[in-house]
Amino acid sequence: MTRFLPKGFYTGAVKTDPDKKKEDLGLLLSSVPCTVAAMYTSNKVQAAPLKLNQKHLENHSAIGVIANSGNANAAALHGELHALEMAQKTAKSFGLKEEDVLVASTGVIGKELEIEPIEKAIETLRLEESEDSFARAIMTTDTVEKKAREVITIDGKEVVISGICKGSGMIHPGFATMLCFITTDIDIDYPLLQKALEKAVKNSFNRIDVDGDMSTNDMVLCFANALAGNEKITTKDENYRIFKKALKKLCKKLARKMAADGEGASRLIVCKVKGALSKKQAVELARSVVSSTLFKAAINGQDANWGRVICALGYAGVDFDPAKVDISFQSEYGKIALCKDGIGLDFNEEKAARIMSAKEITVVVNLHLGKKKALCYGCDLSHEYVSINADYRS
Amino acid sequence: MTRFLPKGFYTGAVKTDPDKKKEDLGLLLSSVPCTVAAMYTSNKVQAAPLKLNQKHLENHSAIGVIANSGNANAAALHGELHALEMAQKTAKSFGLKEEDVLVASTGVIGKELEIEPIEKAIETLRLEESEDSFARAIMTTDTVEKKAREVITIDGKEVVISGICKGSGMIHPGFATMLCFITTDIDIDYPLLQKALEKAVKNSFNRIDVDGDMSTNDMVLCFANALAGNEKITTKDENYRIFKKALKKLCKKLARKMAADGEGASRLIVCKVKGALSKKQAVELARSVVSSTLFKAAINGQDANWGRVICALGYAGVDFDPAKVDISFQSEYGKIALCKDGIGLDFNEEKAARIMSAKEITVVVNLHLGKKKALCYGCDLSHEYVSINADYRS
Repeated sequence: MTRFLPKGFYTGAVKTDPDKKKEDLGLLLSSVPCTVAAMYTSNKVQAAPLKLNQKHLENHSAIGVIANSGNANAAALHGELHALEMAQKTAKSFGLKEEDVLVASTGVIGKELEIEPIEKAIETLRLEESEDSFARAIMTTDTVEKKAREVITIDGKEVVISGICKGSGMIHPGFATMLCFITTDIDIDYPLLQKALEKAVKNSFNRIDVDGDMSTNDMVLCFANALAGNEKITTKDENYRIFKKALKKLCKKLARKMAADGEGASRLIVCKVKGALSKKQAVELARSVVSSTLFKAAINGQDANWGRVICALGYAGVDFDPAKVDISFQSEYGKIALCKDGIGLDFNEEKAARIMSAKEITVVVNLHLGKKKALCYGCDLSHEYVSINADYRS
Repeated sequence: MTRFLPKGFYTGAVKTDPDKKKEDLGLLLSSVPCTVAAMYTSNKVQAAPLKLNQKHLENHSAIGVIANSGNANAAALHGELHALEMAQKTAKSFGLKEEDVLVASTGVIGKELEIEPIEKAIETLRLEESEDSFARAIMTTDTVEKKAREVITIDGKEVVISGICKGSGMIHPGFATMLCFITTDIDIDYPLLQKALEKAVKNSFNRIDVDGDMSTNDMVLCFANALAGNEKITTKDENYRIFKKALKKLCKKLARKMAADGEGASRLIVCKVKGALSKKQAVELARSVVSSTLFKAAINGQDANWGRVICALGYAGVDFDPAKVDISFQSEYGKIALCKDGIGLDFNEEKAARIMSAKEITVVVNLHLGKKKALCYGCDLSHEYVSINADYRS
């Protein structure tokens, strides 16, 4: 069986309380020190683990990360102390230095972390063959584990890039925590790893995310342990481009999985804006569509309510010409034009209903202004979303 | 019985189809020409009636407005023609000039208006003693008529200001149409009327509205017919200030009614941000809280999830110091402190649950930075919202 994680990476997970339904504490470790690239939430309120990681990553190097779910350790009493204690305990238990251990948390904001059960659980953590228990341990309201893997060849060496992430409550994108842990055995200089990660995140996770609307705990970590044996990448050469492309592909796969598993979601919405004057214009208009609460509710009801699409384009705060806009919906069941030159078309409601019944709906918007395009991802708004979030804390 | 409308104003309403559950076409008329101030949506996509009104109000004068519900006449075939036909037919039926008639529409976007039933219905419109049928005629998913009235004295004359509005689907503020028709018998110069209206709207309707997130049809019209007999207001004198204050008070009352009647809403949320460095900072932070989908869902579940408040403050895109923030919740059942200096407090869950069970919940955020404050209004996110909007078009 193919190993999911790259060479030298291992995971383990445990329950901090035997009564928990699933594992809620996970550890990801490399057998050797890694170069680490990191990205954090743009929220003004940063959770304690994020602050700790920024200290521990001053040298861009670490060996692993300990992650708990259920409590975000954000705006919480003794937050920084408890984050440090998680790193210290893990370091002690696995014979590492505390600054080589990073920390991640996701869950309820503002409640003090119960550190004792976590410290006890860390003592019982064992590394396992499969990464599945780790993927489960970081889940909160997620309904499925989210993993993706890419394999590339650099200098004739096989290089693996594996990603495990969690993120739900994405119905209004970015409102709930996203954690993503990427591991690779490539040998690469830190600045290039960071650059490649930023580019990949911009084109993937940030496309399911309204700018600035991030949770207090969002974090993407990319560990590179250099065990693939390639000649170290130190410039933006062809090898760098191959790696960058694969990392972007991996992140896009994970982003789609997150959008599709949005809290209570039954459908993935993809909005493709084309014919734009700039990438920025295309991204902002597409994002406004996938973020529209009214449109999300319409998709939940399988209603081809394109009027809410043109309305969302109109309030995106971006200039365009409404009189030139074409809108169509498509899915595996076909494609239907709904609006031409900004005016609604007569359309076959039966055909539309058939198209809207698919699990993935693509809204295509043509601005007829230029040649740029962009995709954004979202999901429908359902009764289950309300149920989940009306009662999350209790 | 006190007359709701000011001197010289009359309304009427009919069903365009006898099978409709309620009136869906309404007329508001003055017996004499009015000075009219107007504000329109900032959406790039403007519905046809808004474009027509801008033409008809080049001289800032009109006599009435004809309004239909059920179809927004936005991004729809022959939109401008049909809006004009509504004005022409009304003018003909009531012996007016077409440019003295304004038009408003609210409902589904992108569907051609069925003009014939509307034209026939206009012929049957009669002015009535009560304004209630007009208030009902402009409703879509609203569950109650929304009216408010202020009386002031200017130069010893009684001046009445009456407002009738509709607006629901406000769960993510401003996403669905708001129409507001204000009538007053004051005598005032157009520029001052417009200025007073803009100020009032900014402090009321725009506080339940995310900037730029307006529907294609939003419109506020203020008709002043000068029948009160006051000496015409031509400068920013004491009389102007009295009028401006009353207009603001009226708009605030109406805005609260709209937020409380948000689609599917069971609770009004008021967010008060104080201790701010500027009004703008206070408004933007308060708006971010009442717009948070996650927080709205928590309020629906009567869950004192203040962590979502601090999270929403953090992504508002406004600078502040998270370590200085205090948060408390209050209602008619008491007040409870939940967060001090950015850190969660231990609190009595029973007391919190009691407070959260009220119909109106106030979130008080103290930034401890300065002396400015602001209020914003919203409502909870419920199962009913999803039901209403998953199936609105059909």
